[in-house]
Amino acid sequence: MSEVYAARRTRLRERCNAGGSAAALVTRPANVRYLAGAAPHGAVLLLGRREDLLVCQDPPEDRPGEGRPDENLRVRVLPQAGDPAVAAGGLAQAQDADSLAVEEHHLTVARHRALASVTPRLRLTDLGSAVEQLRVVKDEEEISCLRIGAEIADQALGELLESILVGRTERHLALELERRLVDHGADGPAFPTSVATGPNSGRRGHRPTDRRVEEGDFLSVCLGAAYRGYRCEIGRTFVIGTSPADWQIQLYELVFAAQRAGREALTPGAAYRDVDRAARQVLDSAGFAEGLQSLTGHGVGLEIDEDPQLAPAAMGKLDACVPVTVEPGVHLPGRGGVRIDDTLVVRPEADGGPELLTITTKELLAL
Amino acid sequence: MSEVYAARRTRLRERCNAGGSAAALVTRPANVRYLAGAAPHGAVLLLGRREDLLVCQDPPEDRPGEGRPDENLRVRVLPQAGDPAVAAGGLAQAQDADSLAVEEHHLTVARHRALASVTPRLRLTDLGSAVEQLRVVKDEEEISCLRIGAEIADQALGELLESILVGRTERHLALELERRLVDHGADGPAFPTSVATGPNSGRRGHRPTDRRVEEGDFLSVCLGAAYRGYRCEIGRTFVIGTSPADWQIQLYELVFAAQRAGREALTPGAAYRDVDRAARQVLDSAGFAEGLQSLTGHGVGLEIDEDPQLAPAAMGKLDACVPVTVEPGVHLPGRGGVRIDDTLVVRPEADGGPELLTITTKELLAL
Repeated sequence: MSEVYAARRTRLRERCNAGGSAAALVTRPANVRYLAGAAPHGAVLLLGRREDLLVCQDPPEDRPGEGRPDENLRVRVLPQAGDPAVAAGGLAQAQDADSLAVEEHHLTVARHRALASVTPRLRLTDLGSAVEQLRVVKDEEEISCLRIGAEIADQALGELLESILVGRTERHLALELERRLVDHGADGPAFPTSVATGPNSGRRGHRPTDRRVEEGDFLSVCLGAAYRGYRCEIGRTFVIGTSPADWQIQLYELVFAAQRAGREALTPGAAYRDVDRAARQVLDSAGFAEGLQSLTGHGVGLEIDEDPQLAPAAMGKLDACVPVTVEPGVHLPGRGGVRIDDTLVVRPEADGGPELLTITTKELLAL
Repeated sequence: MSEVYAARRTRLRERCNAGGSAAALVTRPANVRYLAGAAPHGAVLLLGRREDLLVCQDPPEDRPGEGRPDENLRVRVLPQAGDPAVAAGGLAQAQDADSLAVEEHHLTVARHRALASVTPRLRLTDLGSAVEQLRVVKDEEEISCLRIGAEIADQALGELLESILVGRTERHLALELERRLVDHGADGPAFPTSVATGPNSGRRGHRPTDRRVEEGDFLSVCLGAAYRGYRCEIGRTFVIGTSPADWQIQLYELVFAAQRAGREALTPGAAYRDVDRAARQVLDSAGFAEGLQSLTGHGVGLEIDEDPQLAPAAMGKLDACVPVTVEPGVHLPGRGGVRIDDTLVVRPEADGGPELLTITTKELLAL
């Protein structure tokens, strides 16, 4: 793996140098992990003029799911409580850099000022989202971690569906799903598991309450596993009881059609906004334009919500090997709703088109 | 409760005005919640010249444990995806403020720049940690939430001790504790539950692994409940099997003595560093100066780690009604160690001295 991290740092260094910066300071944890193999708490990565350094508050430990630092990277542990970003600035200056690109979208004003005050000979510039951009297209190793995470989430969800649901609370179902994720080998949940019943169903990011599952409810569930740091997502909606009501069947079919349209739009070269529109117009034309969520899907990787955003105003086009979610939903206030959410990898048509990672059935199951 | 939030905002406004700022923008979520009653995702609080506003991306929802916004506070929902901090700046300018104090330790350089560019008539100043300072001394309502959270954590821990432990992994024990916290009414865990066995025991913030509990192990557990947003902490170390080894008994007694010394030093007016020293010197004098953690305890409240820090270089003195942890520990590489951690509220001697919130026994239990 070591060469992978070195190659990523080389790409970033080339971008920095092309932008006129001799050195770069990476502070955002997911970016540090991407470039260094691990991001111990508070650690920052200096891409120096002469040497790259991982600057930490404490010695890195080998913890499950946290990765270990690239062994070809020098690790510098600060002698006492200090800001690794400030220390890294001093080290950059000692390496004769004259400018240092920093992540202005992550660094606070106070840290930036502290950094500037200890590095009077350094010109601080903005690295922008250069690392986030490198992270968009995944290699097969990264996709493999996402695939395993998706399998784990499918297993956890499948087991839940075999158990008795009526009478149990959203919070207990969510906790049980998270326990099953860990049972099956996840580092942990990729994000807080969402379980929504009855009038709560269909709401994006619903936080589980003490409401109990009742006959006739929609039940929508959204969960994901983190595996070696990579985070995937699956969402499904079920109906509780023997026979769904007509409105439930109609709403489900509508959201299913929208989600399929979004999935089918995932091809290399497709504009982000066109994927969003493909799903959105199905719901729009059925009269659900109001109250639709602001996006149809998003990238996943070391963070659960990363670039690209599949949204009406998003700029850019999909590449092959970009994993994204497709997750339209409709929520009817007071009644509930439907969300269907998959993680897929964009692949060229010659390779069979989009690769579906989350394979739990999308038929409307009555449980 | 509404008057409580209004009174907190009045105190902050007085500080701001004394510092020469007509208006203040609060962005750190725990600070927003403290002053507004709730902190919906991304929301910011503007203390304006004419009116206070909670500026949100989405309408606030009533979610368990998240609080609800003070009903006397105007809520402004942004019409589309935008930065609430930037929008709040525009609103401050519209209220004829000439300066706006912002949380430079929380706001990123990029957001600060965006804010400055839309508010050319506003001078941006630094609010510093003014809200964090207000949060240090708790009212009885806040202490009551911490007390209930501590009871919940005690219950969860007590139940775990009655079950079979040998052969179970750190990760499963941690998940079971978190489930029990929710069973007993917690919003959720106050922080990731730490379960450490054998050579891992005694490490602060240890992340649970797949190591299984074995006969003869030390088992150290650190957990806490969040209750109505307030977070407490308890840590205990046990020994597995019928009879602890001599080194285990000696190490336990030493850490217990250090922890007791720290607890006994908690009086109004005591310097933070003196509390730290009281505990630390017990360990120092037994030859454990090397490898000691950087602090002996810290404040708790809406965040699990807030001011004050009980550490060698900390400046300041304890007040009554400040809840803190006292949590010394020793870890012997390769062998394991002991941590004992309580949450207490500083009280004057006339009121009976420090109030212990986490009441699980600190005898060395052999399980």
